[in-house]
Amino acid sequence: MKHLLGIEPLTQKEINLILDQAADFKKVLAQPIPKVSALQGVTVVNLFCEPSTRTRISFELAAKRVGADTVNIATSSSSFLKGESLKDTAKNIEAMRAEIMVIRHTCAGAAQFLAEHTNMSVINAGDGFHEHPTQALLDIFTIKEKLKHFKNLNVSIIGDISHSRVALSNIWALKKLGANVTVCGPKTLIPVQIEKLGVNVTYNIKEALHNADVLNMLRIQLERQTEAFFPSIREYAECFGINAALLKKYAKKNVIIIHPGPVNRELELTNEVADSKHSVILDQVTNGVAIRMAVLFLVGKAYANID
Amino acid sequence: MKHLLGIEPLTQKEINLILDQAADFKKVLAQPIPKVSALQGVTVVNLFCEPSTRTRISFELAAKRVGADTVNIATSSSSFLKGESLKDTAKNIEAMRAEIMVIRHTCAGAAQFLAEHTNMSVINAGDGFHEHPTQALLDIFTIKEKLKHFKNLNVSIIGDISHSRVALSNIWALKKLGANVTVCGPKTLIPVQIEKLGVNVTYNIKEALHNADVLNMLRIQLERQTEAFFPSIREYAECFGINAALLKKYAKKNVIIIHPGPVNRELELTNEVADSKHSVILDQVTNGVAIRMAVLFLVGKAYANID
Amino acid sequence: MKHLLGIEPLTQKEINLILDQAADFKKVLAQPIPKVSALQGVTVVNLFCEPSTRTRISFELAAKRVGADTVNIATSSSSFLKGESLKDTAKNIEAMRAEIMVIRHTCAGAAQFLAEHTNMSVINAGDGFHEHPTQALLDIFTIKEKLKHFKNLNVSIIGDISHSRVALSNIWALKKLGANVTVCGPKTLIPVQIEKLGVNVTYNIKEALHNADVLNMLRIQLERQTEAFFPSIREYAECFGINAALLKKYAKKNVIIIHPGPVNRELELTNEVADSKHSVILDQVTNGVAIRMAVLFLVGKAYANID
Repeated sequence: MKHLLGIEPLTQKEINLILDQAADFKKVLAQPIPKVSALQGVTVVNLFCEPSTRTRISFELAAKRVGADTVNIATSSSSFLKGESLKDTAKNIEAMRAEIMVIRHTCAGAAQFLAEHTNMSVINAGDGFHEHPTQALLDIFTIKEKLKHFKNLNVSIIGDISHSRVALSNIWALKKLGANVTVCGPKTLIPVQIEKLGVNVTYNIKEALHNADVLNMLRIQLERQTEAFFPSIREYAECFGINAALLKKYAKKNVIIIHPGPVNRELELTNEVADSKHSVILDQVTNGVAIRMAVLFLVGKAYANID
Repeated sequence: MKHLLGIEPLTQKEINLILDQAADFKKVLAQPIPKVSALQGVTVVNLFCEPSTRTRISFELAAKRVGADTVNIATSSSSFLKGESLKDTAKNIEAMRAEIMVIRHTCAGAAQFLAEHTNMSVINAGDGFHEHPTQALLDIFTIKEKLKHFKNLNVSIIGDISHSRVALSNIWALKKLGANVTVCGPKTLIPVQIEKLGVNVTYNIKEALHNADVLNMLRIQLERQTEAFFPSIREYAECFGINAALLKKYAKKNVIIIHPGPVNRELELTNEVADSKHSVILDQVTNGVAIRMAVLFLVGKAYANID
Repeated sequence: MKHLLGIEPLTQKEINLILDQAADFKKVLAQPIPKVSALQGVTVVNLFCEPSTRTRISFELAAKRVGADTVNIATSSSSFLKGESLKDTAKNIEAMRAEIMVIRHTCAGAAQFLAEHTNMSVINAGDGFHEHPTQALLDIFTIKEKLKHFKNLNVSIIGDISHSRVALSNIWALKKLGANVTVCGPKTLIPVQIEKLGVNVTYNIKEALHNADVLNMLRIQLERQTEAFFPSIREYAECFGINAALLKKYAKKNVIIIHPGPVNRELELTNEVADSKHSVILDQVTNGVAIRMAVLFLVGKAYANID
């Protein structure tokens, strides 16, 4: 494994390899000293060209806990902005002897581009509306932990499907593992022809709840919404938010709810639901560190001369 | 010791425990390798929701020097701002397996709130106008180092008492240790009924100097002053600033001067006084690292399985 | 070696000592674990009062790779800005027991000033229009690596000489090592009487190319240009930029091209030239880490009790 650019290019076997490795690292995280020294001498650079403290910290902790050195770059404070191209920036970092670059970027394809133009291993930490593979991996790790298998599992992804790299990466992962996927949201936020990915489509939250084993509630990215895709936030919450009454009436008794975070409380989920036994959101956060340790280890072990 | 939320809840015995531990760590700081590995495997997150490089660096160095891993979050660069509550932010960090959160926040009670809503150990690095306990601890550590005892010691705290968490934490600490405390400042900046805390009040700098063993000169927080509590900066400096002539005429010969920093030179203190033998401001900075090592160690040792 | 404030005060012997040490560290960088523990227990503070991710990361990696602890301060996020002087800031950092301060500052003389007013070792990472000694050292290290010697070597420095600390540090270094230096740029950007430093001056790029073994192409600092020193960027590129045709017609066959980065592509250099075999720009970046390891080691070894 040289890179992790997206879920789309992975085989089922590769996905399972990452999940198994993450399960091992989750045990490490439960030890008094939650670290291994596997990637000693390997340098991981977190290049975040879009604000994201949550994902950056998760990667930073993961890198430290597999024994790597880390350097953080947030472009708001970066002299790399002085007209330098992303490629030149990356080649400079590589020349300082960094082996792994974790990149978050506003442009779809940024991670792929760096993989083609440098010799570093590249991990995609979110590229525009394209993919966010470690998010999908931590989502399916959490689902597997709770529900054991994917075969014939019904997963509904609810929210702004069109602008969600999380949705896309989840669809790839879940389909490869044999789950049934339904997407649900306002018509303006569901891509046309998304059925071609093998998913069901509904614009009705009740249908999305019916028979679902897992609800993946996407975040409404209030800070990104430049056009009006739905009349108002309040209307969105009424049509596509989940409250306890709705759950009780339409959902399976043991449905689990995942969310990429941060939750807009009382918007995607009421407080009652966000803090209920259905919600496994904090498990996702814990598992995110284990997944990132696994990905860093699997791409990094070649540099550390481990086999 | 699970948390350090303020000085008010501490007993005299607990305060002395921290001071003794800090004295041990001050010796460590004088060694060629100024570190211990006591908190190996413990993760400390510095969550600073208010700018403060000085306190952040002191905590960061202290954490490294007791062997912990550190992660820094400054909210100006934080995606946690995307509408997420402080509680959700903290629970997310906790879920990544951080054991200790150091928090600086503009709201009084923020540290207490996190201690109630997470399982992490919480260290208050300054919460609104409430408390700044590590500052008070380093202040009294420095006083003890220079003057040996607190019994019947006269300490005058001079400046904006109303808006100073430093003043409040110092008053709690000094009273618990048996010192006599006088507060002094413009009438508009002394809280009514502050005498109930057992302190003397004066609006006259000469009275504050008379018989004082220690002068604690608060910083005028020029960047926070939104209302006019005194006619002008120049007038404040003339009435409540300390110069060499004033010291010579009214103060004890061996009076020591402490200040939480950064000093507004020629405002609270003239250059001559700030750099005189009375000033122990840089000792405070050194002691701040030792105090923070002690606090991190005492709350963190439970996680490191040390007894 | 207590400080590195500039190239001007160094002897040829001292320069060669740094180059030899860097050559040793370059071998360390090629090992599976590219680190030594020489500066264990030494704390390096990177105080960057001017944006520069590239130099900051190079120093941060170098410090880690010689075994030191690092703390980064960027003044945009600094409470040290609250009216505190640079001297007080530095003395506070020193009081926390930091041994080495790496400083980048907009004012010429800032590093010298700190060396005079603190006991820390100070490394100048660029001070105004004065010096940028580690840049010059990595430049000459790269030249030596490629061309073996300096005696009678012809180096042309092309661009905005007047506002370039890189140019000035390079001139000092190259002259001390016995090279011939020519500076070239628009008349408005060449200091009067610069010949007194022992350099040749030309305003004609063809003359600068003729017989040059090395071209040092300075960066046009578009973000700093407040006055109009040349009619337009396009005209600058036409008169002083290097393209393949120009190289072929006027330059030596084996000329090497260095650049302090980041390159303004199609301005100082066409893409074709920047990516040609003449360009050793990425070697410079790699060598920059080795040079900074060497400088940190040489000033820091006294604190680490190594001889």
